[in-house]
Amino acid sequence: MSFSVSILATGSELLDGRVVDTNSNFVARELSELGLKLRRVLTVDDDMSELVGGLSRLSEVSSIIITSGGLGPTSDDLTRDAVASFAGVGLFECPVALKHVEEFFAKRGRALDETNRRQAVMPVGSRIITNERGSAPGFITQGENGAIVCSLSGVPREFQQMFRSSVLPLIKQQCGDVPLIHRATFKLLGVPESSLAKVIEALKLPEDVVVSYRAAFPEVHLVLKSARADLTEFVDQARTALGRGNTYTEDPEIPFVGALQSALELKQLTIATAESCTGGMAAELLTRTPGSSRIFRGSVVAYHNDVKEQQLGVLASTLAQHGAVSAETVREMAQGVRDLLKSDIGVAISGVAGPDGGSDAKPVGTFFVGVSSPHGSFEQRCLYSNERQNVRVYASYVALDLVRRHVLGLPLPAGYPIWLAA
Amino acid sequence: MSFSVSILATGSELLDGRVVDTNSNFVARELSELGLKLRRVLTVDDDMSELVGGLSRLSEVSSIIITSGGLGPTSDDLTRDAVASFAGVGLFECPVALKHVEEFFAKRGRALDETNRRQAVMPVGSRIITNERGSAPGFITQGENGAIVCSLSGVPREFQQMFRSSVLPLIKQQCGDVPLIHRATFKLLGVPESSLAKVIEALKLPEDVVVSYRAAFPEVHLVLKSARADLTEFVDQARTALGRGNTYTEDPEIPFVGALQSALELKQLTIATAESCTGGMAAELLTRTPGSSRIFRGSVVAYHNDVKEQQLGVLASTLAQHGAVSAETVREMAQGVRDLLKSDIGVAISGVAGPDGGSDAKPVGTFFVGVSSPHGSFEQRCLYSNERQNVRVYASYVALDLVRRHVLGLPLPAGYPIWLAA
Repeated sequence: MSFSVSILATGSELLDGRVVDTNSNFVARELSELGLKLRRVLTVDDDMSELVGGLSRLSEVSSIIITSGGLGPTSDDLTRDAVASFAGVGLFECPVALKHVEEFFAKRGRALDETNRRQAVMPVGSRIITNERGSAPGFITQGENGAIVCSLSGVPREFQQMFRSSVLPLIKQQCGDVPLIHRATFKLLGVPESSLAKVIEALKLPEDVVVSYRAAFPEVHLVLKSARADLTEFVDQARTALGRGNTYTEDPEIPFVGALQSALELKQLTIATAESCTGGMAAELLTRTPGSSRIFRGSVVAYHNDVKEQQLGVLASTLAQHGAVSAETVREMAQGVRDLLKSDIGVAISGVAGPDGGSDAKPVGTFFVGVSSPHGSFEQRCLYSNERQNVRVYASYVALDLVRRHVLGLPLPAGYPIWLAA
Repeated sequence: MSFSVSILATGSELLDGRVVDTNSNFVARELSELGLKLRRVLTVDDDMSELVGGLSRLSEVSSIIITSGGLGPTSDDLTRDAVASFAGVGLFECPVALKHVEEFFAKRGRALDETNRRQAVMPVGSRIITNERGSAPGFITQGENGAIVCSLSGVPREFQQMFRSSVLPLIKQQCGDVPLIHRATFKLLGVPESSLAKVIEALKLPEDVVVSYRAAFPEVHLVLKSARADLTEFVDQARTALGRGNTYTEDPEIPFVGALQSALELKQLTIATAESCTGGMAAELLTRTPGSSRIFRGSVVAYHNDVKEQQLGVLASTLAQHGAVSAETVREMAQGVRDLLKSDIGVAISGVAGPDGGSDAKPVGTFFVGVSSPHGSFEQRCLYSNERQNVRVYASYVALDLVRRHVLGLPLPAGYPIWLAA
């Protein structure tokens, strides 16, 4: 049997539809980075015979089985018992795990009770997987027939930390001969995947340069991978094809707000937002990364028109003549918030997020962005027909992308979505 | 074997991470409406032995197996061959299916080639499932051991149409005697799952009342299910055990912000937020639901202390003496935003979101909430040790939960997280 990884996802909530299994996709993507593919994913209920049977069948074709879920303190958390049964061993209370659970509760000013103490129990012979984000530690257990079982919390943020810290190194060590993969990443915002795919396909890159796309709304990330020692030629071709300013970073680790924050710090500029339909989302994005106080002054969420007038100084005549969703209004909002909060840059958003409030002239999904800065001001009108929350996310990102381009002196797109020149 | 439904999801794209399997969750939710739960979900690669083996194992525990994917015209579309092999029959070209495929291509002005003609082929004895949204028809096939296989397109919009038009009626007809499941839901905010589990376990509910929990940070939802005609007695017990005010709704369809919006509308009160560490997130939450303009005036995100002083009227002496993260500061922020934006209620948040900026007196995760209203004002100090974005989400929800309780005259908790009295 060649090296392979399978997943046993457990939990009623996956089978009755309350929760979508995102952990399997996470593992699949992590493995694809190594040039590996998942062998099987099996989802079963919190039931001993289903769990033990699942482990047994997966072990026939898998070197490593990752279980997700069932490590909590309650009676339907059966993973530790199932893995012990599969491995043909008993259970023990792991002192290191107990210490972790105790510390977790102590930090929160809580005494440990018998129920929670159960989380320190694991199959005999297991190695602990530290859970830095939750109370339940995981464990790695060798099965009778050679398969290794890695049991992780089912909570995605805990699952991801535990996978990266303990399972990924094990996989890398076990699979051994995976070829070193050279890669290049381009992160873009507001460019439809189909448009990106079209310009990249037109390059007719050689077959051994593998092209993949990841949509992370409203972003899309392009990755080129190859076993070649030098990808420079093809990276240059892609860079030219994508056009100046559309790629906000080529560093896979930098999120969009990180790139924007760096741009503002580089130019020593501060920013403030004035938001209507986005309700504070652009401000929230700007404050996600530590250190945002160096560039962010604050925001006025002017949901009611009174607030637009009284706080931001939008003229009553502007609202009456052009409406709250207009280039004229966002211009005055951007200027107003810049003056009020004493920032270098003011950015304003007003739109029709829906589902109601649209008109023929300004259908649902219409929004305006205004930017005011020492280097000038401009407005952009966009239409993004989608459901309410997506329109709001889209508008927030577009507003900040326009600021990024303006600050760095990059060309502004003709509109969003951005259709690349094929 | 009691009636049960499983899924065999097929396709490389599910195992290499390019696509998240949303079809399984769709089926799970459709089944839960009937009081049914999926039995198993198995995801395998486009490989004959994996497919036939998967069908065979699932048929041991399933009355109906739904396959998704593998109906296309290319060489890795193997579902029709696998189902035929599983059922022990040959293949035939179905005239009705051929007509559908021909019409699909004709409508798009394309001639049918041999490759696409393959999509009209299905196992002998199968019944066609019309695909109204794509070119590949599906089919329903009886397996040798009694299990029925329903093969659908893997494209979600095609899968959903085919499931609803052909598979759902079959399930309803087959399951016949499935007991109607009575259920009760309790949605809580800021209560750890372990604390909730402890009080519910102490009730010692009868075994046929199935208890499940779903964590949806920072919420946890409790569901009681039973085949009993009357759950009232146990619902009442749970309601008492959970304590007054901790359940924000018993309606599974109402999100937290919806419950808060209803409370404010009921009392005809408007709200405004003054936010520091949360950067506008509470305002963003308040504006997620349509109709939020009826209760939400706006927000001042006072990230910089200048903004706290100049816009919200926080005294320089308050900031100097108590710091920006203090009960005194959030009291003045809440009062200030209420006056400034002319809302009935002002709610303010200031905290140390981290990862830096903590001290012994105010470690990372410390935050203060202030509420100012016509009925009085109060402040609450909380500590939630976690990573930056989670502290921000937690603080935003806690602030709005305190407003909900205050508006409805419900008791305020001693602190967050809320540890229920066991």
